[in-house]
Amino acid sequence: MKVTVLCGGVGGARFVRGAVEVAGADSVVVVGNVGDDVEVLGLHVSPDLDSILYALAGLNDEQRGWGRAGETWEALAVVRELGGESWFALGDRDLGLHLVRTQALRAGEPLSGVTARLASALRVETRLLPATDDRLRTWIETPAGSFPFQEWFVARGHRDEVDGVRFEGADAAAPAPGVLEALAEADLIVLAPSNPFVSIAPILAVPGLREALAARRVPCVAVSPLIGGRAVKGPADRMLARLAGGTSPRHVTRCYEGLVDAIVVDEADAHDLAGLGEVRPIVTRTLMADADARRRLAEVALGAVPA
Amino acid sequence: MKVTVLCGGVGGARFVRGAVEVAGADSVVVVGNVGDDVEVLGLHVSPDLDSILYALAGLNDEQRGWGRAGETWEALAVVRELGGESWFALGDRDLGLHLVRTQALRAGEPLSGVTARLASALRVETRLLPATDDRLRTWIETPAGSFPFQEWFVARGHRDEVDGVRFEGADAAAPAPGVLEALAEADLIVLAPSNPFVSIAPILAVPGLREALAARRVPCVAVSPLIGGRAVKGPADRMLARLAGGTSPRHVTRCYEGLVDAIVVDEADAHDLAGLGEVRPIVTRTLMADADARRRLAEVALGAVPA
Repeated sequence: MKVTVLCGGVGGARFVRGAVEVAGADSVVVVGNVGDDVEVLGLHVSPDLDSILYALAGLNDEQRGWGRAGETWEALAVVRELGGESWFALGDRDLGLHLVRTQALRAGEPLSGVTARLASALRVETRLLPATDDRLRTWIETPAGSFPFQEWFVARGHRDEVDGVRFEGADAAAPAPGVLEALAEADLIVLAPSNPFVSIAPILAVPGLREALAARRVPCVAVSPLIGGRAVKGPADRMLARLAGGTSPRHVTRCYEGLVDAIVVDEADAHDLAGLGEVRPIVTRTLMADADARRRLAEVALGAVPA
Repeated sequence: MKVTVLCGGVGGARFVRGAVEVAGADSVVVVGNVGDDVEVLGLHVSPDLDSILYALAGLNDEQRGWGRAGETWEALAVVRELGGESWFALGDRDLGLHLVRTQALRAGEPLSGVTARLASALRVETRLLPATDDRLRTWIETPAGSFPFQEWFVARGHRDEVDGVRFEGADAAAPAPGVLEALAEADLIVLAPSNPFVSIAPILAVPGLREALAARRVPCVAVSPLIGGRAVKGPADRMLARLAGGTSPRHVTRCYEGLVDAIVVDEADAHDLAGLGEVRPIVTRTLMADADARRRLAEVALGAVPA
């Protein structure tokens, strides 16, 4: 069975690891969000691709929830001491990757090519594709103004309410090599438990992606990132409340109108399954507290395909 | 007393620290070599300026002889694992500085401006000036071909004999702001115990520098980098033998013909003071084995000025 997963950052990355453990590394293709990519200290940082890469390589920090396990922070401490750009937490090991990627991008290698090389060097067998090799950046519209994603998310601690999200460069972006093929060849498409607005939407904003998903001939299942109407982490619940009118499964589903056939929701949301229309609810425990839990969640989501 | 020191890397940096301890931070201006600057992993590295900066800030690694004390190497290990450019040893703390400097240079700040800011952030009160803000790069001519300095020095371990040295970009370079003033206002000019060919010569290759030194009205004293005809570290002795015909004080002096009034040489070279012409030899112990030794050497060198 071939599974293609559209995926954002940390939560999605955990799910992807579960999916790979269930279906096998060769059977999964991951299409990662690049809307929250950012230039920090002159380096090109792709936080979502890296979260996925680190999770698949088993290098991610399970405790902290982001970045690499055993990370150190010597370079950043010096940057701070020297009055440099230190608002974005770049660990030393993380920096090593950003340096290699940035140099390759400057030399003209596409992001998809660098990503494949990095994955290979980390012995990650699962294909990880950026949604696009082109520059696509998520901007957050708030009452306090319009901010690049990371400025809103990290520098401002995502405290501003979100009135809208736009994707700079999306119109001119093309799907990265392999992305449309991965959608066309999949037996199942999964939208990982990621933020619909800032993780999945920027992937779907790449011209051709949404259309390919809408025209799918195979099931597509979304995994809700909410548990009992709350985000495990991050602003997904606040964004859903404000932008979609609520945090019930139907509100999540509405973000993916016409694109999904089933939605995996947590038991804590099982009381509120009205308004899903033709989208089939699949109720299970969705908190990926440990390796077993993420595997069970992936099993349920991947079970959405008729055998 | 105002002292202006022309200086290369590690040995020179130690001497400069001694000079500052003797004369006071306000009394010393250092003009640093930039010929061995190099782009590594997309970062602008100025090894000599950094050696001086680290020495003056008391951050240098006395044991290893280069780089920062307490340095860690996490980023570089990842770069290596990912197949990136790892031939040049960049520690994590060192990287922090390179990231800040590179970002500033890309934003259009001149090297002298960045250097002053870095020094200030590290609470270094001594003025440290790059010889030039323009791109000037040392190339080494060898029987095996022509190499950028760091490729010859680090990547090839300076094993190739040197037939010549040239300074790419020197013709179009201008002295950095303050350099000519520092030479004009000095009561004493010192050529630090650095490699004459690849540390001091690239400074003198900046148009106007050699002329200013030749036209000086104050004493200029060179400190020989050799002890008993041998370099403490590095290829200075081999280069002198091949390019100047020997490793005696007169061969070092010949590198600075018309530019120096005195030369500080080690006791181990006191037997061979012939051929110095009008250059006055000053014999002392020159090995800067510890803080006392570097201070004593600086005292002797700075004593070359008539009170």
